[in-house]
This record gives sequence, structure tokens and C-alpha cells, in this order.
Amino acid sequence: MHDRPDLTPLFEPRTIAFIGASKDIFKWGFNVLHHIIKRGFSGEIYPINPSGSDWFGRKMYASLDEIEMPIDLAVIVVKDTLVLETVRHCVLKNIPAGIIITAGFSETGPAGARLEREIADVARAGGMRLIGPNTMGVFSAYPSIMHALMGSMPLTPGSVGLIAQSGNLGTSISYRFLRRKIGISRLISTGNEADLSSEDILEYLENDEKTSIICMYLEGLRQPRRFFDAARRISPKKPLVLIKGGRTDRGAVAAMSHTGAVAGSDEIFSSMCRQSGIIQVDTMDEMVDIVGMLMQPRPKGNRVAIITLGGGWGVVATDACITEGLSVEPLEEPLIEKLDRILPAYWSRGNPLDLVAPARVSVITDTITELMEHAKTDAVFLMGLGYMSFRARGWLKSNTIPAEAAKEFSQIMISEERKLFELVVEMILRYNRPIIPVIDLMAFDIAMEGNPVQFLDDHGVMPYPCPDRAVHALAKVVAYRNRISSLVNEQG
Amino acid sequence: MHDRPDLTPLFEPRTIAFIGASKDIFKWGFNVLHHIIKRGFSGEIYPINPSGSDWFGRKMYASLDEIEMPIDLAVIVVKDTLVLETVRHCVLKNIPAGIIITAGFSETGPAGARLEREIADVARAGGMRLIGPNTMGVFSAYPSIMHALMGSMPLTPGSVGLIAQSGNLGTSISYRFLRRKIGISRLISTGNEADLSSEDILEYLENDEKTSIICMYLEGLRQPRRFFDAARRISPKKPLVLIKGGRTDRGAVAAMSHTGAVAGSDEIFSSMCRQSGIIQVDTMDEMVDIVGMLMQPRPKGNRVAIITLGGGWGVVATDACITEGLSVEPLEEPLIEKLDRILPAYWSRGNPLDLVAPARVSVITDTITELMEHAKTDAVFLMGLGYMSFRARGWLKSNTIPAEAAKEFSQIMISEERKLFELVVEMILRYNRPIIPVIDLMAFDIAMEGNPVQFLDDHGVMPYPCPDRAVHALAKVVAYRNRISSLVNEQG
Repeated sequence: MHDRPDLTPLFEPRTIAFIGASKDIFKWGFNVLHHIIKRGFSGEIYPINPSGSDWFGRKMYASLDEIEMPIDLAVIVVKDTLVLETVRHCVLKNIPAGIIITAGFSETGPAGARLEREIADVARAGGMRLIGPNTMGVFSAYPSIMHALMGSMPLTPGSVGLIAQSGNLGTSISYRFLRRKIGISRLISTGNEADLSSEDILEYLENDEKTSIICMYLEGLRQPRRFFDAARRISPKKPLVLIKGGRTDRGAVAAMSHTGAVAGSDEIFSSMCRQSGIIQVDTMDEMVDIVGMLMQPRPKGNRVAIITLGGGWGVVATDACITEGLSVEPLEEPLIEKLDRILPAYWSRGNPLDLVAPARVSVITDTITELMEHAKTDAVFLMGLGYMSFRARGWLKSNTIPAEAAKEFSQIMISEERKLFELVVEMILRYNRPIIPVIDLMAFDIAMEGNPVQFLDDHGVMPYPCPDRAVHALAKVVAYRNRISSLVNEQG
Repeated sequence: MHDRPDLTPLFEPRTIAFIGASKDIFKWGFNVLHHIIKRGFSGEIYPINPSGSDWFGRKMYASLDEIEMPIDLAVIVVKDTLVLETVRHCVLKNIPAGIIITAGFSETGPAGARLEREIADVARAGGMRLIGPNTMGVFSAYPSIMHALMGSMPLTPGSVGLIAQSGNLGTSISYRFLRRKIGISRLISTGNEADLSSEDILEYLENDEKTSIICMYLEGLRQPRRFFDAARRISPKKPLVLIKGGRTDRGAVAAMSHTGAVAGSDEIFSSMCRQSGIIQVDTMDEMVDIVGMLMQPRPKGNRVAIITLGGGWGVVATDACITEGLSVEPLEEPLIEKLDRILPAYWSRGNPLDLVAPARVSVITDTITELMEHAKTDAVFLMGLGYMSFRARGWLKSNTIPAEAAKEFSQIMISEERKLFELVVEMILRYNRPIIPVIDLMAFDIAMEGNPVQFLDDHGVMPYPCPDRAVHALAKVVAYRNRISSLVNEQG
């Protein structure tokens, strides 16, 4: 067994020494420091550069020795040949954690690997734990934002932890979360993993109260047994969503050259994922889609109702459901009769429920209520939203109709759609079952103010831009729920 | 055999009678007319409503009889019970084409179907050709924009023709084209196809000089034989990209209730698509991705090079290529030696070519040149672009560094990336092979001015937001090219 390292100084430092600070804005020594300061790290930060002087008005320290306060975390961006002595110096100063951004070690060949091992040995012997080298950095949202990353995307605080064995995948994925309004608790680009490994970080997130969903991009594992043991423990409590790089032989060769990771058999890896409750996905978009679905109430089964404001969306959604193993339950006659009293004369009288552009929003919400109360419905898809606001915004920009009339009518339209979204959020809570809005791409493009999508975002309900992605995400979450039920039984 | 209808009055009308004009902005009689006028139809448009008076300052005609000019096209939005007599009136006035937006016919049951047949018979006997009823409308970009659509998305002129057996799918797809900066030549929501069918429209687009790629959403075919014969003729000249709705049994039931289309066997349909050179896709995003790839030079084979500015992107792109049947060709030793002289010391020395964040843009373009000149490369993926501009924009918004310095340096960075994109466009032309930029999502979000993506858009080079989608689109285009080569041989 292994001891769990105390990673508090890494994720919740009170003081940071930034070793290798630079005023050259083409260098990481500028950019990473700039990001930490710009994003408002609330502790003390000490820029260090032998030249001393200042960093855009802040005191620049010539050496660690000039700092009197104890340092929790060293962020190291000095050039490769200086990293070893920098780490030695950190150890002398009893700094418990370091992030080595600098590259040029094991990823470059045997000489780099030897140097990297020496650095790790020095750190470990001195009680210093390291992320990297060759890492894109670390982001931690609590207790205050520490944005020690190469990437400048303005990530927001939330409950998703992200472990990435690739800096650029970490950046791409976390930006996608930002864009879909999903917050991050911690983001760790593990780099070469000379000391702290993905396994260590996973076990840290296991007990991190700020993290409720864990996402990973992995190319290879140093301790697969330990990793999957942890996954099996964690997945019933915190869903794990994973992308595996290097699945094909040629991809594995590329991964080897990238992080030195040895990939092993893809089939065995995927089977281990299934057995331990991990949700394995193929793409970044799929990852974000599934995380959004995990934020809804978890579906108790695979029986879905499809409510649509247009026939075609209902058809492609039904195809997608059947292909993905969801059940589009036929409606029973008493329910159809009830709905006949609510719905326009020419509604589809079946599931999908094509409401044929109903005149009032209450028609939609009354239909959902009937389904939730009287049908075997584990989840509801709501297709074709966002058009009312889109059209209303178009009126406002028109010079064909009088401005006053345009304003009055567009307000009515926008507030109707807004009311619908409020009711959807309310019903998700009341029935504790997912109601999944599918909102066409165009609605996402309406500027902030007056955009009803914003309301859903604010309430943690992620809309999907097309039927297929919504359906796929739900199917994956249903499969996850089934898997962890049997996992809990096996373990119980 | 059948005669080909003359659809010039439908797609290139000089005069439009808009029958059922309304000032109630919650009605289609307002919205569709509003769209035609707002988008600047250059011919004459006659709003008609029995109440007469005016339509926001334009003369409103009480009846067709008040109009002296010959009318090319009638757009009909009157209520369902008035459609038959309206069509009779149009026939009397020798109007050669009509678009019936009004719904409530064959999609509602046998009575509606009878009425619909009567309408079609009256029109056909009188030499009037109809789109609809129950159509979302028609958009035609040439000779001037005629936006006779329910949807208000501001589509731009281009060379993609889109036939949709669902108004909402037509809207969703065409908005996706708009967003990815791909223009539309004609968009036809065929509705109930009482008269003109998808087959008729396909044959029109076959000879339409303004259309070079044809996209379709189909739920069912009235004349499958005729359709696939046309497809086999057309696909070698104009690629056909198709989504089939109602592929599963439950989806087919939904399609039946939607458009009355009888779907038939999905397996046979897909096999007919393959045989006739149709590119069948599953989703709207896939459709747009493939159309973007069809605008690049067509690849002569499946041998790709992957240039990446970060290791992880190269790994996932390689996996995707292998899975999709593309060949990630190993580099030969003489080429590696040449590249050693250009590239940073620690580049990957293989394909994917991980350039490890090179200092200058010329390093990237020199590498492409070497690959094009000296390697067996049918297409190049270029991964990880867009970050320079993104970071530079971040500097501009910073208050940590002096504004003057920020401005100077960000200009350098933005213009470097811009230069790269200019060279990419130049090399695509020079080598007549696809160079496919993969640009992270974040770059798409940079406001217009100073966004280098804009430059690519302006030159018809569509960037992809992630490796998987770029790779999948190329693989589909390679398969299409192989298929039509053998089609041409079979036919030759």
C-alpha cells in the first residue's frame, strides 16, 4: 500500500514563489505569472528572477533567500538546465509543493530522463511533492482562484475535477466546459509525472469535497491496478468520465513519443473501465455533454418521452434513442385522451409527442406534467426550443415594423419562452427526473441579455444543440447508473 | 420517363403575390412576408389580404384581381379551408408556381389528404407547380435573395443546395451552414409534396449552375428508383450528402405521422446510397463538416500527415485516423534529416509531427512544404492553431502590463498567426491538396476583428474545432472519391 501525499499546499497554497518570472511577454515566465495575478490569486505571490528589479510595478526577488515568509508552492519556469538546482533550493527552504512547467526532460530521450529522475529523487528526499515537469500547470478554484496555467481561458469555479496527461487536451477540454457554463474545481496537467502521478491526483480528488465529477484524459498508467481499484471505489460516489489516447497501435506510438506512456491493450483497458464504472468516451464534446447530463437528476431507467415542436426533430431523436438503447414508450390510451384535451387537434397522438407549434407555453408544461404523473417516463427530451426568442430578437432589429410595436411584441415572446424555461427548471426539481432541453444552435448565439439559455445555465441545466448529442449523453448516463448499481451490489 | 418541370418561376421569380399577408406579428402571414422584404427581394412583391388597407406603409391588395402585372410566384399562407379556392384563383391568373406554407392537410388524416389531392389536381391541370403544403418555405439566393421561409436565420448566398423533408431540420441545418460561413444557393422545405417532390427538386439542382453540392434530409421517397438513378448521375459531378430520418422502426412510425413518408428497409436504403455515390451521414454537424471538406481540393488517396503544436492533439488525431481508415504514413529517413534542420531539437521525428511549440510560423509552413514536396502525402492536418491570437487578445484586456506594450506585442502575435493562415490558403492552391486547420473552439469566440479564423472563412477554408471531426470528414470524402471513381468506371 502507499501513503497518500498531503496535496493541500499544491491546491490551496497561501504563498507562491514564482521562480523564473519574466517581463518578456512571449515567455511562459511572463504568461503564467500574468494569469495567476490577473485571475486574482488571494494569497501572496513572490516573483523571482536573479535580475531583481521589478515586474510591472511589483517587487521582483533576486532569490528565494530574500523571502522571509514560508512558501507553500513553487511554480518553476526556469530553463531546463536550472531546474535541478532550483528544486534543491526549494527543498532547502522547506517548500512542500512544486509545479515544474519547464520542458526538455524524459520526453526528449535518456539524458533528459536521467535528469528528471534526479530532480524527483531530490524533491522526494526533501519532502517536496512535484507536478511535472513538462506540465501545462494547475488550476485550483478553492479557496481562491489559482490559475497557474499556460492557457489563459478564464475558467470558472465549479465541481468538475479534470486530470489531463496532455496540456493541450486539458486546455481544449476545460475551455469547452467554460463555454457550456460548467465550472472546474481543479485542473491538473500531470506532465511527465516524475513524482505525482495521475493515480495520486485521482485519489486526492476522491476525497476533495469541492469535486463531485472527475474527468480524465489518459495516455498510459504507471500503476493500472491502483488506478482501477481507486476507480471502482470512487465511481459510485463521483462519476468518472475518461478519454483514452493511444488506443490504436499508431496512436500508442505517438503517445510514447509524447509522454513516454506505455498504453497496453486497448481492449483490456476498456473492459477494465467498464468493470470499474468508468464512463469511457471518444471525444471532448462527448465528455462535456455527459458531464452536463450528470448534473441533472439521475434517470431511474431507460424509458423516455420526446416532446417536440417540430416533426423532423422528433423523427431523428427517435432514431437516435432506439439506436442508443433507450425506450421510446408508446402512450397508453387514457393518457392520449387526457392529452387530446390539452393539445392542438393535429398533435401526433403518440411518442414522440409532436405538439405542432402550440400557441401557449402552458401546453408544453401541462404535457410534461401529464407524462410525469401518468406515464412510465424516466426522462423527457424537449426538442425545438429557443426559436421564440430568436424570432423576437429579429423583430427588434427590423426597420419594417414600428419600433414600439416590435418592442412590445418581442417582450411578450421573450418572456413567454423565459417562463417556459423557468417551469422546466421547477419541474426537474419537483419530479426529480431529467428534463433535457434541446435548443438549436442559433439560440446560443443570441447576445447575453434576453437570452433564455442563460437562465438554464444559471440553474445548472445544460441545453444540447441537437437531438443526437442529448440522446447519446442520456444513454451513457443510464448505462453508468446500471453499472454502478451492480458494482454496489458486488461490493455490498 | 417524366418531363422536367420548369422551376424558374419558383426559384427566380420576378414578381411575388403574398396571399394571406397579415400585420399580426405572431402569424406566419406577417413573419414570412417580413423575411422576404427584410432580406431584400429585388423583384415586385404584392401583399394580399381581403381587408385591403396597408402593410406597414406598403399597399395591401384586397385580391389577386387588383394586380395587373403577371405574377411568377404565389406564396400562400391563408388558412387551410381557403387554400383550394386560392389555388383556383392563382390558376385563373396563370400563376406558374406556388409555395403553400399553410398546414392541416395529409398530415392530419384522410380528410386532409383528400383536400390536398384536390388542390394538387387543380394546380397541375392549370399548369401551376406547387411546393407544399405544410412547408417551411423556400430560400433562393440567385438572382437576388428570396427568403420565403418561416425561419429568420440570415442565410448567405453560396453553392450548397439543401432539400429538406422537414422544415425544422432544414432550419437547423441551414443555420449551421450560416454559422460555419457556408453559403446556400437554394433551400427547399418540400412539405407534404402534394405536387413537386424531392425527386423533382433534386433533378432541378442537377442542372442548376449555382449549386455545386447538394444536401438532403429525407424521411421517405415516392419514387426511389427515379431518385437513385438521378443520384448516380449527379454524384460524380455534384456530391450528395444525405441524412435519412426514420431509420429505425420506431423512427419510421414517427416519420409516418410527420410527413406520411413510408420509409422502407433501412439496410436497402443505405446500400442504395453507397451504390449511387451518396455520402450518407448521421447528424447535422457531420453534414456541415463534410461539406466544408468538399470545398477543399479533393484528396487523391488516404495518406495523411498530422502536424501538431501539442502532443495530445497528435495522439487523438492519430487514433481517429486509424479508426477511420486513413493512413498515418511513417516519415522516411531522408525527410526526417531535412526536417531536423528546420525543426526544434525535440520534435517527434515521426508522423504525427509534433513541432513542440515552434518559435516562428515559417517553421510550420516549411514543414508543410517539405511534406508536400518529398513525402507521400494526400492531405495535411494542422492541429492546435488559434492560440496565438487568443493569448494576444488576453494581453490587450490586461491591466497588469502597460497598454502600449500590450498593444505592440499583441499586434505581432496576431499578425504572425494571420500570416500563417495566409500561407495555408496559398499552399492549398499551390499543391492542390487539402490542408485542414484544426482550431480550438476558443478561437471561434474571438470577436470578428482580428480573428484569424475570419481570414480562412473568407477564403473558403473551413477550420474544424477538434481533431475527431476533421478526421471523420476527410475519411468520408476519401471514401466518396473512391466510390465515384468506380461509378465512373462502371458507367464509362
